[in-house]
Amino acid sequence: MPFPTRSSFVGRLAPGLAVSLVAVLTTGVVDRVTAAGVSWGYSGNIGPEHWGKDFTMCGMGRNQSPINIVDARTLDITGLVTDQQTVGSRPAGFLKIEFDYQEVPLRIINNGNAVEVNYDPGSKVTVHGKARSLNQFHFHSPSENQIGGESFPMEVHLVHADEDNNLTVIAVLFKEGEPNPFLERLWAHMPEQIGRQVVVADEKINVMDMLPSDTKYYYYNGSLTTPPCSEGVAWLVLKEPIEASKEQIDAFRSTMGFANNRPVLPQNTRVVLTW
Amino acid sequence: MPFPTRSSFVGRLAPGLAVSLVAVLTTGVVDRVTAAGVSWGYSGNIGPEHWGKDFTMCGMGRNQSPINIVDARTLDITGLVTDQQTVGSRPAGFLKIEFDYQEVPLRIINNGNAVEVNYDPGSKVTVHGKARSLNQFHFHSPSENQIGGESFPMEVHLVHADEDNNLTVIAVLFKEGEPNPFLERLWAHMPEQIGRQVVVADEKINVMDMLPSDTKYYYYNGSLTTPPCSEGVAWLVLKEPIEASKEQIDAFRSTMGFANNRPVLPQNTRVVLTW
Repeated sequence: MPFPTRSSFVGRLAPGLAVSLVAVLTTGVVDRVTAAGVSWGYSGNIGPEHWGKDFTMCGMGRNQSPINIVDARTLDITGLVTDQQTVGSRPAGFLKIEFDYQEVPLRIINNGNAVEVNYDPGSKVTVHGKARSLNQFHFHSPSENQIGGESFPMEVHLVHADEDNNLTVIAVLFKEGEPNPFLERLWAHMPEQIGRQVVVADEKINVMDMLPSDTKYYYYNGSLTTPPCSEGVAWLVLKEPIEASKEQIDAFRSTMGFANNRPVLPQNTRVVLTW
Repeated sequence: MPFPTRSSFVGRLAPGLAVSLVAVLTTGVVDRVTAAGVSWGYSGNIGPEHWGKDFTMCGMGRNQSPINIVDARTLDITGLVTDQQTVGSRPAGFLKIEFDYQEVPLRIINNGNAVEVNYDPGSKVTVHGKARSLNQFHFHSPSENQIGGESFPMEVHLVHADEDNNLTVIAVLFKEGEPNPFLERLWAHMPEQIGRQVVVADEKINVMDMLPSDTKYYYYNGSLTTPPCSEGVAWLVLKEPIEASKEQIDAFRSTMGFANNRPVLPQNTRVVLTW
């Protein structure tokens, strides 16, 4: 594997990196914590295996993210899909993700558990007949979701909310390869200080520039991958990975100082759909 | 509708009918309560809308049962299924429920929130490539799941567990019609006293006798419909209803003394699959 395994990161989380409610509220990243004000992290006694103590759904949820997406043809339950016959017609483009992302000024922050780009209002996708507005995107290394047991060196999550505030995450996996021009522009403003948003008014970005040409996806019903691990999150994991150079991946990892991936959770009775 | 609406039952639950942990443990129906030992019921301040106070998943879960199963062709997200192409082959009979139910002595109990028949070990179904052992079946009136917004006068839940103790419920809906010969045999031993199992050694039953001839189903990922509302339960709701006479439905309702159906919960990001 081109990246350190999870175990090699263990113990590298300095106590000061634990994210408190106060620190998080000042950055506006409120969807990552409950009102309980408890800390969480990625290793030691505040690591993922302990999240359930303070955040119920992290421990009790049976529909959690991330997961290992197993090939539809080798996974029993998915047979329900693959054997299904067409029983009705659907508007053309119903399954396709229609992107309507705008160019926005770069607002980037290291919130202590990820590097996140907050997106100005006005960008959205439409999929399955419903519009979903882009709020932010952020990075994990190594990847959180896996495909057929394979981990990837990095993963970006584009977090959307519909008008009922139901979340949809579009996940894109990175493989090591050519330098990624879009990341190049982001990483030039990599925030080292935790909790302080860097605004670069004259650096206009459009996250559309980072997406692969083919945006077919795996669909599953999951959760936030960070406390409070709320469920009812629609996951669209794009099948086509994008590339980043080893230096770009290392730069992110160096900024974080630890692996910020939650280990995969069981699929249980869920069905992964493919398109 | 051929049965009283839910509102007409409100207030008919006598306080003494609330099921305590002690009462339930003595009957062996431990999958319905947590160790918290708190009471719950179907109306008043221990009714379904209050379950979340003591049973977290009942309130926080986003993958709860029952649901209103909406026709695949009118429900957006289900399009993922109906538009899916076959991408691989599957063993013949993979989707079919293979029943292997044995004849057992009747063990029937009124546990205070349902009339339940405990099934001796050794009966199972195989579906989606996995064996699931039948533990018990019990009745709700009116139905808990709905189809296309339609409620039914009664519903039976056949509760199975696989070797990892993951639950599978096969649900069968009743419509009012001819007397049901299988119910006739059960109701002859209807237990009026709460918490005392009636064993009728010479009354041998096979629940296979109650099932419809066509066992195609709707499949969805849900929960227990009673506290603690644990999720990760596979639901197979048979499409073909069976019949019971008005007198048989009334007899059940009279024994319970209240409507023992949890109201439907939102589907959220779940997909209902049909076969």
